[in-house]
Amino acid sequence: MARFFFAASNLFGGIAYFNGREAERLSALKIGEGETITLCTGDGEEHTFFVTESEKAQVQAEYLGVTPAENEPTARCIVYTAFLQGGKLDYVVQKAVELGAAEVVLFPSKRCVCVPKRGEMMKLLARLRKIARDSAELAGRGLVPRVRAESMFETAIKSAASMEAPLFCYELENENHIKDALRGRENAMSFAVFTGPEDGFTPEEAAYAKACGMETVSLGKRVLMCDTAPVCALAAVTILTDNM
Amino acid sequence: MARFFFAASNLFGGIAYFNGREAERLSALKIGEGETITLCTGDGEEHTFFVTESEKAQVQAEYLGVTPAENEPTARCIVYTAFLQGGKLDYVVQKAVELGAAEVVLFPSKRCVCVPKRGEMMKLLARLRKIARDSAELAGRGLVPRVRAESMFETAIKSAASMEAPLFCYELENENHIKDALRGRENAMSFAVFTGPEDGFTPEEAAYAKACGMETVSLGKRVLMCDTAPVCALAAVTILTDNM
Repeated sequence: MARFFFAASNLFGGIAYFNGREAERLSALKIGEGETITLCTGDGEEHTFFVTESEKAQVQAEYLGVTPAENEPTARCIVYTAFLQGGKLDYVVQKAVELGAAEVVLFPSKRCVCVPKRGEMMKLLARLRKIARDSAELAGRGLVPRVRAESMFETAIKSAASMEAPLFCYELENENHIKDALRGRENAMSFAVFTGPEDGFTPEEAAYAKACGMETVSLGKRVLMCDTAPVCALAAVTILTDNM
Repeated sequence: MARFFFAASNLFGGIAYFNGREAERLSALKIGEGETITLCTGDGEEHTFFVTESEKAQVQAEYLGVTPAENEPTARCIVYTAFLQGGKLDYVVQKAVELGAAEVVLFPSKRCVCVPKRGEMMKLLARLRKIARDSAELAGRGLVPRVRAESMFETAIKSAASMEAPLFCYELENENHIKDALRGRENAMSFAVFTGPEDGFTPEEAAYAKACGMETVSLGKRVLMCDTAPVCALAAVTILTDNM
């Protein structure tokens, strides 16, 4: 059964009409009369349609109903990643969305090698949002995770600290492993995994995070690269909350 | 403390002499007299040296001793991945090595889009082995995981099936999640995670794997890309065996 996101549709008396880009797409996927299609508006709901008429310029379908998207994880985990160099953020967003991230938030930190300026930032966010949308579609997600940026480290920390299980992944933390930190919190509703730039966080940043209520955690003895750490931390939350 | 792999060294009566590339490297890292360095031969042991003389062309150091590499995971997990298109294998090898894979094995399968020919295979393996070495060094691994290729799907299955916990990651498996499959086997000594190409495994391949003693597992409701699945499956083993 074909399954993809769509921006909007016209629905009159239980009949949906797809024109333009949406009709072209259905045609490209060779979806014809008599087939059932699932479309997501990207807000966590899935709409099912039965195709009754199919032409290149317009596809007509009977609206069968709406159900909550069944592929969404039960735990909401937001991935906070520092600005990274090169194409590393592309990779983090793509993989985080596949794994089930609820949102991806970028933030600046002391040792960030490059923090985009205003104009670049808009371009970067536009690119990452497209990656998030494509990845969500391929992964069969029921929503497109939001990708946004915080302009200050401190506001990112405060936002992350408001989650039920706010985890600050810190290279110098050797005692408290992410699995220990999550023990007994498998049923929390909201999680944050917070990871640093190429050269890691400063001790002052870790102290600030702790003071704001975050918990410093270790991701194991091996040193993970800045684009691996967020994906692994999210994988840990996904596994331990029974979502993998 | 500086820490890297070295190919060989001359050790006479407790004094080590580093020449050529190794001396240049120490010099580039600005490692001078009075510093302690850790060198790995890549076989799971760490050698500690105290630098007594440092010049660009030769570095002399007192050999302090050898210890088992302390960053190696307690569980040995081999990542079996089908041949993938483009640079995806580069990524799988890099991340798998960071996460602690014991070995990475490539294999052909029915739906593989491209299986390299003999000449290309040597080039591919050489490139992946360099990536493995670089990644192992950056991650602080005590050994360089081997990267090798099987020429037949069946031999790859048999090799994987010989592990204590042989997990065949299969998109059509909806019941047996990887976490369930690992319950009670957290103390196994050897694991295999086996993942497919772009379009997944055929039902016949999954049946063959089962017949050979492998267990089909699910990696969750979201569809993971072929380069994400091996990394996530390895992360699951790493977390559940207390190595993250």
